[in-house]
Amino acid sequence: MTQAPTFQDVVAAHQAIRPTALETPLLRADALDEATGGRVWVKAECLQPRGAFKIRGAMNALTAIDPVARHKGVVAFSSGNHAQAIAYGAKLLGMPATIVVPSDAPLVKLDNARKDGATIITYDRVLEDREAIGREISQRTGAALVPPFDDPHVIAGQGTCGLEMIAQLQAHNQTFDQIIVCASGGGLAAGIGLVLEAQSPGTRLISAEPVSHDDLARSLVSGQQETNAPGSRSIQDALMSPSPGKLTLPILQRIGARGVAVSDEEAQFAMKFAFSHLRIVLEPGGAAALGAVLAGKLDVRDQTIGVVASGGNVDASTFARALALKH
Amino acid sequence: MTQAPTFQDVVAAHQAIRPTALETPLLRADALDEATGGRVWVKAECLQPRGAFKIRGAMNALTAIDPVARHKGVVAFSSGNHAQAIAYGAKLLGMPATIVVPSDAPLVKLDNARKDGATIITYDRVLEDREAIGREISQRTGAALVPPFDDPHVIAGQGTCGLEMIAQLQAHNQTFDQIIVCASGGGLAAGIGLVLEAQSPGTRLISAEPVSHDDLARSLVSGQQETNAPGSRSIQDALMSPSPGKLTLPILQRIGARGVAVSDEEAQFAMKFAFSHLRIVLEPGGAAALGAVLAGKLDVRDQTIGVVASGGNVDASTFARALALKH
Repeated sequence: MTQAPTFQDVVAAHQAIRPTALETPLLRADALDEATGGRVWVKAECLQPRGAFKIRGAMNALTAIDPVARHKGVVAFSSGNHAQAIAYGAKLLGMPATIVVPSDAPLVKLDNARKDGATIITYDRVLEDREAIGREISQRTGAALVPPFDDPHVIAGQGTCGLEMIAQLQAHNQTFDQIIVCASGGGLAAGIGLVLEAQSPGTRLISAEPVSHDDLARSLVSGQQETNAPGSRSIQDALMSPSPGKLTLPILQRIGARGVAVSDEEAQFAMKFAFSHLRIVLEPGGAAALGAVLAGKLDVRDQTIGVVASGGNVDASTFARALALKH
Repeated sequence: MTQAPTFQDVVAAHQAIRPTALETPLLRADALDEATGGRVWVKAECLQPRGAFKIRGAMNALTAIDPVARHKGVVAFSSGNHAQAIAYGAKLLGMPATIVVPSDAPLVKLDNARKDGATIITYDRVLEDREAIGREISQRTGAALVPPFDDPHVIAGQGTCGLEMIAQLQAHNQTFDQIIVCASGGGLAAGIGLVLEAQSPGTRLISAEPVSHDDLARSLVSGQQETNAPGSRSIQDALMSPSPGKLTLPILQRIGARGVAVSDEEAQFAMKFAFSHLRIVLEPGGAAALGAVLAGKLDVRDQTIGVVASGGNVDASTFARALALKH
């Protein structure tokens, strides 16, 4: 599969990733409805193995590798959550894994990948090109390269999250007016976009990014791949890719997605809210979509809203800092 | 229904509590397997509306009240989580609710019940008898009394948790060797016990209590209702009932349950472990069963183990203290 992924690829992915990926629950919190004026459902992807939706795309990409080539292994570049998912999936499939991660990635994410037996190679987020490092390793060793978002199998895998959300809400005889999902390179957003296009074309898709890394929001306005200023920082470490993907952006343009930007403090507030009212642990980037809704970045009044709570890999001190904030 | 509840009551309860109670996921964490040597599955009841399994028993008891008598309301006595569940369920059914809670109950639990419109009456945990206060209100107002555990509808409702656990594990072609569940008065344990007796008689049931409130463990050994020393304290506030129930104890004796005791520090360690590896928020009492497994209180090596993570209503400072502990 080298071309753009389709809805049928998402349906096929849903079979491929079972039973490794969990069908995570769609949670309700009436405190959230009261705070926003909408009917808000939260897809708790932080409950996945290795704490993020990334297991969906990773398992779909890994199981698509020809079994006779699996002994050559897999190489992935990632800010952390994709790395963990690839390391875990590779362990399950008996494949060696090499992970190229930024030197400032959260230790908790690297530790998990290392415990799963992956070889970790760090790079400088500002000075080095992680894609080039990954490609070089792949060419030298024959390992399959699984990029974090700009890959048809990965996008199709992430889309299974949307497939579940729509089916889970249908069981309550409801449909989404809007779905809000965090975006780094846009793999999860594009995958869910494919599902909405096929199954729920009336649902609007909104991406949430850090204020410092709103490349997707600007790209959706300009119609071309915008980039972020090099060296921009955010505590939403999972959402710091330099630009949207060549595969993801056209899908998101086609379905009319638009982007909003979330400050670090808004993400922290959402972490605290999720702690109190949903009893789930979210990392800063995993709380971006919830933060967008709680901060009033989009009009949700009297609407049925889906929010993807995408990941929960956060160290105790970062989490405690979010809980200690006064709001 | 005045007699002891049966397995059929649990099956009927499962229909009655839909769609209010969530079918919570059964989570895996290989870190837990590595730490214990078993194959451990965690039922994440903290994800329920109002953050605890208590919604199961509360909704089953409330929907069993004759509709023509519902306007007279409901009265409940509780250390907090049952109170919240009754207040929430009463709101959904349009019933007035009066809650009798100890004056030292966590504020977060009282706040939620108050927000749901319940009238709160506090009592002194050492000096006053909450059952007598609840009965007096019931007799004076005609409100239905829903006790926190020693009630056939409540026990049957809590049992639905076990019904789901067994079905969810069957989907993986596995059965439980042991299920560990926290106990205060033993309603959840007894309800799950009814399910095991009917569907999985080879599964051993273990209750976990605070060291300071191990009345059920001692009662299971002595064969009679043991009590705790008045004034005993624990941060596991949800698990501080003075003795097991008249209905719950005989069920637990009949199925051969046994009890283990968990220190506050062991519960805090489990809270931190659940934060890091399951990305769920547990309160001290909600982490007791997980704490028992992690502290090696029972032999789980090479066994398939079910752990109920029963609740997640905890204030930020208590949670941050558990995260800050060095282990």
